[in-house]
Amino acid sequence: MKTPKEIVNLMMEGDAFSRWLGISVDKLDKGHCTLSCTVRAEMLNGHHIAHGGISYSLSDSALAFASNSYGNKCVSIETSISHLLPVKEGDILTAFCDEIHRGKTVAIYTVNIFNQREEKISMFKGTVNISREIW
Amino acid sequence: MKTPKEIVNLMMEGDAFSRWLGISVDKLDKGHCTLSCTVRAEMLNGHHIAHGGISYSLSDSALAFASNSYGNKCVSIETSISHLLPVKEGDILTAFCDEIHRGKTVAIYTVNIFNQREEKISMFKGTVNISREIW
Amino acid sequence: MKTPKEIVNLMMEGDAFSRWLGISVDKLDKGHCTLSCTVRAEMLNGHHIAHGGISYSLSDSALAFASNSYGNKCVSIETSISHLLPVKEGDILTAFCDEIHRGKTVAIYTVNIFNQREEKISMFKGTVNISREIW
Amino acid sequence: MKTPKEIVNLMMEGDAFSRWLGISVDKLDKGHCTLSCTVRAEMLNGHHIAHGGISYSLSDSALAFASNSYGNKCVSIETSISHLLPVKEGDILTAFCDEIHRGKTVAIYTVNIFNQREEKISMFKGTVNISREIW
Repeated sequence: MKTPKEIVNLMMEGDAFSRWLGISVDKLDKGHCTLSCTVRAEMLNGHHIAHGGISYSLSDSALAFASNSYGNKCVSIETSISHLLPVKEGDILTAFCDEIHRGKTVAIYTVNIFNQREEKISMFKGTVNISREIW
Repeated sequence: MKTPKEIVNLMMEGDAFSRWLGISVDKLDKGHCTLSCTVRAEMLNGHHIAHGGISYSLSDSALAFASNSYGNKCVSIETSISHLLPVKEGDILTAFCDEIHRGKTVAIYTVNIFNQREEKISMFKGTVNISREIW
Repeated sequence: MKTPKEIVNLMMEGDAFSRWLGISVDKLDKGHCTLSCTVRAEMLNGHHIAHGGISYSLSDSALAFASNSYGNKCVSIETSISHLLPVKEGDILTAFCDEIHRGKTVAIYTVNIFNQREEKISMFKGTVNISREIW
Repeated sequence: MKTPKEIVNLMMEGDAFSRWLGISVDKLDKGHCTLSCTVRAEMLNGHHIAHGGISYSLSDSALAFASNSYGNKCVSIETSISHLLPVKEGDILTAFCDEIHRGKTVAIYTVNIFNQREEKISMFKGTVNISREIW
């Protein structure tokens, strides 16, 4: 069985979009991870703040890395996100993913994202399906 | 008061991320819109399918355009998405945004995304806060 | 394999809370059902409207009946509900449950509830885990 | 302005359904509360476990008490719940409601419910609209 680090390296290799987001994997353990990225001009929306898809995508990558790190392939089935504060160009976002529950076929995670002033900017919940396929 | 088309043109001008996604506005009316985009290699994740953030971002843009088209600025407060089928490179995604409810300060929309084979690939629900600020 | 009607009769026999809610099964098919109930004084909250738990519970019963009707036991893993309009004592609620997606281990349903004036009062989405256990 | 305790007493007086649930208010502060109740036979569903509507309703009452305790009337607009573990007759449920964000017109809360063995049985997130009407 591969280690969490080997699995996430393998995932990141193929994960062109996480690379576009500039995601750095700061911490990683079975069921948990900490990711960060910096908001660039091309990530902004029509309100001149980060598009909601940016914090969602960072959260969804965190969900993928934390849930797949045990060795079984997991795919997201249902996710929700609350946008709490606007995010601006140059903001550094840090996403903390925690495991809430891991059963046989379903697991649930939360991802809280903070900016560089340690203000929570979004709260995400994700449910994944745990397949029998191994990384 | 600006028309829906004028508002969305204004939003798209500043919306660098929707432009990166290659979003085309196919239909637009107060509270409703149809958007489309094509999945490129840089939108894929470690499973070699579209990152969940792509269909979320397309849905979130549809929510923004449909909800802001009345003239008042609206900001997303809570959104959820179910990923139903994997999306591949080259797939053409079409997002249909419908208004479910519009009150004085809160409005709710769904966005259903279909691929070029008319299979539903995701179902999104978004709640926005209607501000008093005018576009 | 039991029919949808046999399964739901079996479920309703043990379902004391659905009976307390006064739920009537108006239509039933694999993956779909229509339920109704009347709002009583003991279902109201501190705003003198129906407690949010009433429309949620009616939706959750509809989810259970529609998803279990194929024969495999299904248990709800993630659900969300938007409350659109206040519900009053004496209102007759009708819940329509539709199947959005049914895979091997996970299925997704929506439940829309209308009052006797055909106004939509809530929108629910539910994800269930399909077990191998048969009714 | 009334105190949190005066407001919740006023809400509970009119809240026949929370009384039917047997809810006890164990702790209460602006934006936070702890509620408990015991699962009775009439709260069970067709799987012979507590109906999903029971933990939802307990969570929704906690959301109502915590969000209304500042003095402005708040109404739930969007809520979601993940059911983590089955709940049985006789189980004692304790719900902890925490404030995640409180803006001018919208506030967000989580409610985590534990059983008497301190196992988390559900995780709820609720968004409310803050009206100008005072209790």
